[in-house]
Amino acid sequence: MSILVVGSVALDTVETPFGSAERVLGGSANFFAAAASLFSGARVQVVGVVGDDYPMADLGFLSERGVDLSGIERAEGESFYWKGRYHYDLNSRDTIWTRLGVFADFQPRIPENFRSARHVFLGNIDPVLQLDVLDQVDAPELVACDTMNFWIEGSRDALLKLLPRVDILMVNDAEARQLADHPNLLHAARWIQERGPRWVVIKKGEHGAMLYDEERIFFVPGYPLESVFDPTGAGDAFAGGFMGYLASVGPGNGDELRAAMVYGSAAGSFAVEAFSVDRFRTLTPLEIARRVEEFREMTFFEHDAGSIHG
Amino acid sequence: MSILVVGSVALDTVETPFGSAERVLGGSANFFAAAASLFSGARVQVVGVVGDDYPMADLGFLSERGVDLSGIERAEGESFYWKGRYHYDLNSRDTIWTRLGVFADFQPRIPENFRSARHVFLGNIDPVLQLDVLDQVDAPELVACDTMNFWIEGSRDALLKLLPRVDILMVNDAEARQLADHPNLLHAARWIQERGPRWVVIKKGEHGAMLYDEERIFFVPGYPLESVFDPTGAGDAFAGGFMGYLASVGPGNGDELRAAMVYGSAAGSFAVEAFSVDRFRTLTPLEIARRVEEFREMTFFEHDAGSIHG
Repeated sequence: MSILVVGSVALDTVETPFGSAERVLGGSANFFAAAASLFSGARVQVVGVVGDDYPMADLGFLSERGVDLSGIERAEGESFYWKGRYHYDLNSRDTIWTRLGVFADFQPRIPENFRSARHVFLGNIDPVLQLDVLDQVDAPELVACDTMNFWIEGSRDALLKLLPRVDILMVNDAEARQLADHPNLLHAARWIQERGPRWVVIKKGEHGAMLYDEERIFFVPGYPLESVFDPTGAGDAFAGGFMGYLASVGPGNGDELRAAMVYGSAAGSFAVEAFSVDRFRTLTPLEIARRVEEFREMTFFEHDAGSIHG
Repeated sequence: MSILVVGSVALDTVETPFGSAERVLGGSANFFAAAASLFSGARVQVVGVVGDDYPMADLGFLSERGVDLSGIERAEGESFYWKGRYHYDLNSRDTIWTRLGVFADFQPRIPENFRSARHVFLGNIDPVLQLDVLDQVDAPELVACDTMNFWIEGSRDALLKLLPRVDILMVNDAEARQLADHPNLLHAARWIQERGPRWVVIKKGEHGAMLYDEERIFFVPGYPLESVFDPTGAGDAFAGGFMGYLASVGPGNGDELRAAMVYGSAAGSFAVEAFSVDRFRTLTPLEIARRVEEFREMTFFEHDAGSIHG
């Protein structure tokens, strides 16, 4: 099944306590595509923009996996270039610079042959542009959307206009609270659902992720890694694993979204094991299957219900 | 099975955005006993100290459930009295005062008939006193221990001397990192295990709790409450539910600790629904069973392993 992803195709320079990587593949669309293309039947179509300095050849490994990069526009100027430095505990980072370059004027143009995409992932860009993308596509079965504090604050009206057209909103816990202006996550999720999305995915980094549907909540723990190498892109890889799984099996009655949460978490956990999208170059189906099984084992218990006073 | 708990028997005045409660039952031993005494076969024995101002009659509901309060010493002076105020989001609080009163000179004396307790829970007190308790008991099958940043910093030597005699250390994530002086939780847990405890329980508040055994990790999510009423005592109620379950079914081969984590989380989630230990006065076995089942459903998923490229 086809998945259209619209997002950033960037270059990252990353410094961590364990080393650094210079001008490597980054951006939401790249991490998403690297993870989503692992799934059988997921035909990923990327729309983004790069400058004339972008190392297009480096994207070759995505093409080889069937990712359609023909929607990446090449514009005159510099590519989106982010430089960041992670602190000792890897939970916080400083942005050294964000050079938007050609991304500053990004106006997504969805190629004719991408418009019938069944699933759409709107990476973290201006909600005005996200709306514009939805105006260009036919009638997707499933629309998932990422956003961030910057847009919640600065483009709130556009975001609220977008929500009724979104099936799955993916945010982190702080963003959910900010959007709903309420400290309680359950309340915040319900608030968001009342404004459109049938499902809300709340990402909590090392604390895992939660899926809110109409009635229930699904919870997947953070994968306990002995060493996080580079946290960049974990959220987008999560989205890629999540949407890739759904493209492979279909959203079904909604139960499939629970498994998608686990595949997304697995993808996110692999992303942080290496710089850039590098871990996805070598990842095998068996490694993914094993990690999904580990997630299951981490929450499995049997109990004696007779232990309580009658 | 008998569980000896040594901890604070206090009075709390609590202010939350939803109301306030004055001079109500508080302290680790009370919350622990209220939760642990729900379990069949768990005979809870409390050792603590109160001043001559303590409303002993208020503890009647614990005695009625078979909690043995004969180890609570009555000393001349004021009882441990804590006053706190929770902020809007209930995740942070200000301590208005901590009046230790007679608790400042607390020297646990374990009554003769408590010394053969099979399970021991060392509430959050000076590790020097926790060691002293262990010197007074016979040969408990299971020793669990709580501690906090204050002791990790100020009584580190005693704490490190205590660890080899502890089977289960219960701390929160910040305390685990502080104790092991390492930002990675998995690393911190392994560091602690190398110093004695076979199991490490890491409590993460709204983010749930984790159990580290020799090889595996078990994860229980935080129970998603629409409204947290008063977070005071959640951690001690967790410990009470955890130890109460184990006293009822036995620690077995360790798998029982996974279920204990869920019963502990259920107990903690009930504790925050009312002031003080009040929720435990009315809690029914059916309510607990339902919540345990909710915890199971929150992490249950089925998946199609064929979704990954071969």
